[in-house]
Amino acid sequence: MRRAIEGVVLGVVLACAWAQACAADALPSWRDGPSRQAIVAFVQKVTTEGGADFVAPPDRIATFDMDGTLWAEQPDYGQAMFMLDRIRALAPQHPDWATTEPYKSAIAGDAKGLAAAGEAGLAKLLIETHTGMTTEDFDRTVSEWISTARNPKTGKRYVDMTYQPMIELMDYLRANGFRTYIVSGSGQEFMRPWAQATFGVPPEQVIGSLGELKYELRGDTPVLVKGPKLVHIDDGPGKPASIAYFIGKRPIFAFGNSDGDLQMLQWTAAGDGPRFAGLVHHTDGKREFAYDRASHIGKLDKALDEATRRQWTVVDMAKEWNTIYPPAK
Amino acid sequence: MRRAIEGVVLGVVLACAWAQACAADALPSWRDGPSRQAIVAFVQKVTTEGGADFVAPPDRIATFDMDGTLWAEQPDYGQAMFMLDRIRALAPQHPDWATTEPYKSAIAGDAKGLAAAGEAGLAKLLIETHTGMTTEDFDRTVSEWISTARNPKTGKRYVDMTYQPMIELMDYLRANGFRTYIVSGSGQEFMRPWAQATFGVPPEQVIGSLGELKYELRGDTPVLVKGPKLVHIDDGPGKPASIAYFIGKRPIFAFGNSDGDLQMLQWTAAGDGPRFAGLVHHTDGKREFAYDRASHIGKLDKALDEATRRQWTVVDMAKEWNTIYPPAK
Repeated sequence: MRRAIEGVVLGVVLACAWAQACAADALPSWRDGPSRQAIVAFVQKVTTEGGADFVAPPDRIATFDMDGTLWAEQPDYGQAMFMLDRIRALAPQHPDWATTEPYKSAIAGDAKGLAAAGEAGLAKLLIETHTGMTTEDFDRTVSEWISTARNPKTGKRYVDMTYQPMIELMDYLRANGFRTYIVSGSGQEFMRPWAQATFGVPPEQVIGSLGELKYELRGDTPVLVKGPKLVHIDDGPGKPASIAYFIGKRPIFAFGNSDGDLQMLQWTAAGDGPRFAGLVHHTDGKREFAYDRASHIGKLDKALDEATRRQWTVVDMAKEWNTIYPPAK
Repeated sequence: MRRAIEGVVLGVVLACAWAQACAADALPSWRDGPSRQAIVAFVQKVTTEGGADFVAPPDRIATFDMDGTLWAEQPDYGQAMFMLDRIRALAPQHPDWATTEPYKSAIAGDAKGLAAAGEAGLAKLLIETHTGMTTEDFDRTVSEWISTARNPKTGKRYVDMTYQPMIELMDYLRANGFRTYIVSGSGQEFMRPWAQATFGVPPEQVIGSLGELKYELRGDTPVLVKGPKLVHIDDGPGKPASIAYFIGKRPIFAFGNSDGDLQMLQWTAAGDGPRFAGLVHHTDGKREFAYDRASHIGKLDKALDEATRRQWTVVDMAKEWNTIYPPAK
């Protein structure tokens, strides 16, 4: 008898992961709004064996943009903030930077000066901070930075400005047999050292822009040295290409937050069978940042129109998320 | 009592997969020679929990070259044979090809004429057969070709000229918690349509050379069109770079057969902890093809010297494999 009761209890617990009624447990930071309902309905549909919309586990692929979708992207993308911090860290070895652009503006955090330096200035800063070292040295530098660096606007560590509802969403999808990928314009080597601990996404599921890696033998020891050539830019129309390169299958579920994600969402939504396309809409100026069509970073304009036209899910952060950032550890 | 007996039987069956004594069951096409012994000893070492050389499953990564390592590469690489077959299939739509190089030599299978056409001639043939179509159309063309095309030297289908011992080896590694990757100079879109059925390797674990993929909207339907630009060549020093791009971890086990695999083997062997580097040596002119240092295709020269110097495993196909190709279906 006791065994039978345990069996029933266990059955309820197991079933709970799959049922609408238990979504509150799986997605506690999501209020019971249209976005959570759409997510849960989709997951139920594709995981119901024998159902018309059942999708076998190997095809349950979900892709997520990173900046502005999984963590905050204000005042600038994480990798840009890393770049500026690195310039400051390297400045003592380059006394001439104090009076030379674009380094001077980078050290001062002078956005106008950096804008004036343009693409050529940015390229100089990227080459200085992202090339010439081995992948292992870069990995170490990124790991040190991410463990201590703080957002100048909030004073929080960047890893404490991830979005708790999105972390729960990725967990929920994985618990339902999905593989979750990050598909970001950031460099892969910038994301991989901390993506597993932060988002639960292992290195081979972190897809980003690709820079040249030059193989060298140093004595008997092979190294990969980061070179200046960009091999592939994983943004906008480059995202479906990256998905083809890295996954070789079309996702059935994708989430972004800006026009740079439009093509990934189109590509995902245009496949056969059940599809989910979602946008995080930054509506919460109090708890996070409010921006969309007019923003320099994370501009959401065309993709918002397309989402309306196609009835994609648009998450109103202010209304639908009862928590933004993870609880302090 | 009966349950207890079943438990013991089950225990033996399960244990068998891990034990040297049972290697003959897992690798029946391998004779009990130095290569099989080295493989089994390595797998036992890295899977023994609590052992000094234990490797956690997420880090059990094995990479395999394809042409000449997993299937035959004579008289030319599979993708080159596909290219020539495609030129012949398209020729009726291009009457001028009958008298124009490099098409004329391609149609005739004239190796000298093709050699004379050089890199520029090859580029023309590649552009004609590999670009301008959507990824979906190319997938269909490759799938049709692989199901019917035959090797002109043996009359066998290419998929029947895979190496049975290597297929068993990949199965054996997967049964021991490894992820098995293909890392080949061939194009990804050429390999992925059939790699899972043939080698048990899913699309996202098939790594190859990358060509440009252009995103286009045709009406409301997005497509990816194969363009002429090469994005990354996954051969020689490009293999460790591909491994970094796609896996983001260093393999602990790698197998190749030619100088194009040297850097992948060096990169694998140079990591910390237990490492396995292996070469398939084409010594069997009777059952397959015998070639190494002087061969135009699959030249094995520098890598053979390095294997000797570093005591990598070199498989003598004639002596160590009791079967080459899979049994006829």
